[in-house]
Amino acid sequence: MFQKPTLIVDPERCRRNIRRIAEKASRHNLTFRPHFKTHQSLEIGRWFRDYPIDGITVSSTSMARYFADGGWDDITIAFPFYEGMLGELKELEKEASLRLFLHHPSHASVIDAALNNPVHAYIEIDAGYGRSGISITNRKAIDELIHSIQQSDKVSFHGFYIHDGGTYQARGTEQILDRVSDSYRALQQLKADYPEAKTSLGDTPSASVLNEFDGIDEITPGNFVFYDWMQVQIGSCSPDDVAVFASLPMAQKLSNNKAIIHGGAVHMSKDFILSGEARNYGQVMLRSGNNFSELPNTFLAALSQEHGTVTGDIQAIMDSGEPVWVCPIHSCLTANLFETYHTLEGETIEKRILS
Amino acid sequence: MFQKPTLIVDPERCRRNIRRIAEKASRHNLTFRPHFKTHQSLEIGRWFRDYPIDGITVSSTSMARYFADGGWDDITIAFPFYEGMLGELKELEKEASLRLFLHHPSHASVIDAALNNPVHAYIEIDAGYGRSGISITNRKAIDELIHSIQQSDKVSFHGFYIHDGGTYQARGTEQILDRVSDSYRALQQLKADYPEAKTSLGDTPSASVLNEFDGIDEITPGNFVFYDWMQVQIGSCSPDDVAVFASLPMAQKLSNNKAIIHGGAVHMSKDFILSGEARNYGQVMLRSGNNFSELPNTFLAALSQEHGTVTGDIQAIMDSGEPVWVCPIHSCLTANLFETYHTLEGETIEKRILS
Repeated sequence: MFQKPTLIVDPERCRRNIRRIAEKASRHNLTFRPHFKTHQSLEIGRWFRDYPIDGITVSSTSMARYFADGGWDDITIAFPFYEGMLGELKELEKEASLRLFLHHPSHASVIDAALNNPVHAYIEIDAGYGRSGISITNRKAIDELIHSIQQSDKVSFHGFYIHDGGTYQARGTEQILDRVSDSYRALQQLKADYPEAKTSLGDTPSASVLNEFDGIDEITPGNFVFYDWMQVQIGSCSPDDVAVFASLPMAQKLSNNKAIIHGGAVHMSKDFILSGEARNYGQVMLRSGNNFSELPNTFLAALSQEHGTVTGDIQAIMDSGEPVWVCPIHSCLTANLFETYHTLEGETIEKRILS
Repeated sequence: MFQKPTLIVDPERCRRNIRRIAEKASRHNLTFRPHFKTHQSLEIGRWFRDYPIDGITVSSTSMARYFADGGWDDITIAFPFYEGMLGELKELEKEASLRLFLHHPSHASVIDAALNNPVHAYIEIDAGYGRSGISITNRKAIDELIHSIQQSDKVSFHGFYIHDGGTYQARGTEQILDRVSDSYRALQQLKADYPEAKTSLGDTPSASVLNEFDGIDEITPGNFVFYDWMQVQIGSCSPDDVAVFASLPMAQKLSNNKAIIHGGAVHMSKDFILSGEARNYGQVMLRSGNNFSELPNTFLAALSQEHGTVTGDIQAIMDSGEPVWVCPIHSCLTANLFETYHTLEGETIEKRILS
């Protein structure tokens, strides 16, 4: 198992992460529509079945196809609708109830003409994060869109969705709450103005640390199932909550503070955080049984296609008699690059391959 | 074909790129051992068969397995040897003659004990780039390593290898030549001191622009088969040499200078170049038949898992009536993320999936 780059998942931690968010959703009367883009695995998806899950969230029609084939029948495709999706949607609607992100008044009639079954529409709102969605200040566009949906035979208006990626820039609970406050207030205002609409909040940091959800009906986080080193820095979780680690072979010790390992951009992806001035593409950990602890100031400082350059305490790694354990910076992208997951107990967990 | 993110390869340009380097190698009496990590495709590999190819270069044992199964029988694994490779090497040696990168005096005896057939050893040299290899100034380590190889039954010393990734920081022929000069001189000096050893130079910028190869016996570039937008900036190629483009659906026009497209980190990877202060994760192109031209100041400015944010002249893209054509920044990593290649003529080109 440790002869080549391998991605290890800790099922117990995953299940604990799932339980924590599911119970929080239940306590606050929130509908939990977990985003499955992080794990992309039918088996890990089944671990959510212990809780009342109304449906799942995915980020593409092909990911929806994978989970629909695995028996999920209420699927939100949390990506701006475009007409190229229709071919796959025509097949998907035979198996699952679909929730789509509409953003143009023409979409409802396009869907009426192309699909046969009812579709639920979300309107994605941008309350300042600045990626996709309609600006919260553009009420005219929101009202026109709702009006177009009301004219539709097949599309019904479900509610508003905000993914506030701004929380990824936060460090600590206070900053997370501060960063998400515009999105939170936007959803509350929309709930007040459109009381029939559901309001949905998407990001993992908010779902992890918020303890009040007034005016929020749904949460759709995804990353929390694994968490990662970025989420530890943000303060969404403790290091002991991280449930995914790459096992990467040591290839060449270059000095006491530098080594080449077999783990590059094709294994880890190239997201990084800054450790001072240096880029950190993955945090080196030491393992003791099922526990992993940070090896201070030791991380993946550079990545090429298959080479990873680790700087820091190389001797401590050599002394461990273990492969190089690396906590991913962004587990969604790292998980996407591996063909399967493994557990420390030697089991294989199947997943979807490539997006 | 254009309904979802798709990677388009232009076979004619690929073949032209292959021919150009193969003919240069032939003119300069260089052995051409092309690196196949960029395309990872048996079919594209076959396009090299028109030229005298002594063998190929790959970056992992599993990539070697893919190409050995496809009939390649002289394979250089251009990655520092580590003992975890032995399991796969035992299978590989049945099908192919192997060239390995040894870097420790214990390696030759480890290989003697584990493998059955002759193995050729490269010594990777670091002449200043600072990734892997033994420093050119450390003659003692080089001599000890050669001595250990000379004691071996199965391992024979093939020669020295330098991959000078420093050329990726160059802009223009003069800077490439300047950056590679330390590596070039190191190989010349090694050739003078060890006349029986072969000398091998690895990077695409040098292979593309060098016109003198005194003291160099082999070249092993890989990226040149596709090139990419980074290589255009470096000056390794002209924009018309780039042979791979992503076709990405427009999802949501947000304003005249900003749109969301379906093309994220799971399609493009996250390598970027700087356009002024801004990160450019992919250059937007306009297509006319088989020709692609730069749409100025229009590029992928941000990527999340599946969302790409394009900034620039959105109207010009909309007016084209085409999907969003994006020239990858680093084609090796982008190609690694797609399941297959397509051509504009509607053909599919199979490739290896995941590393």
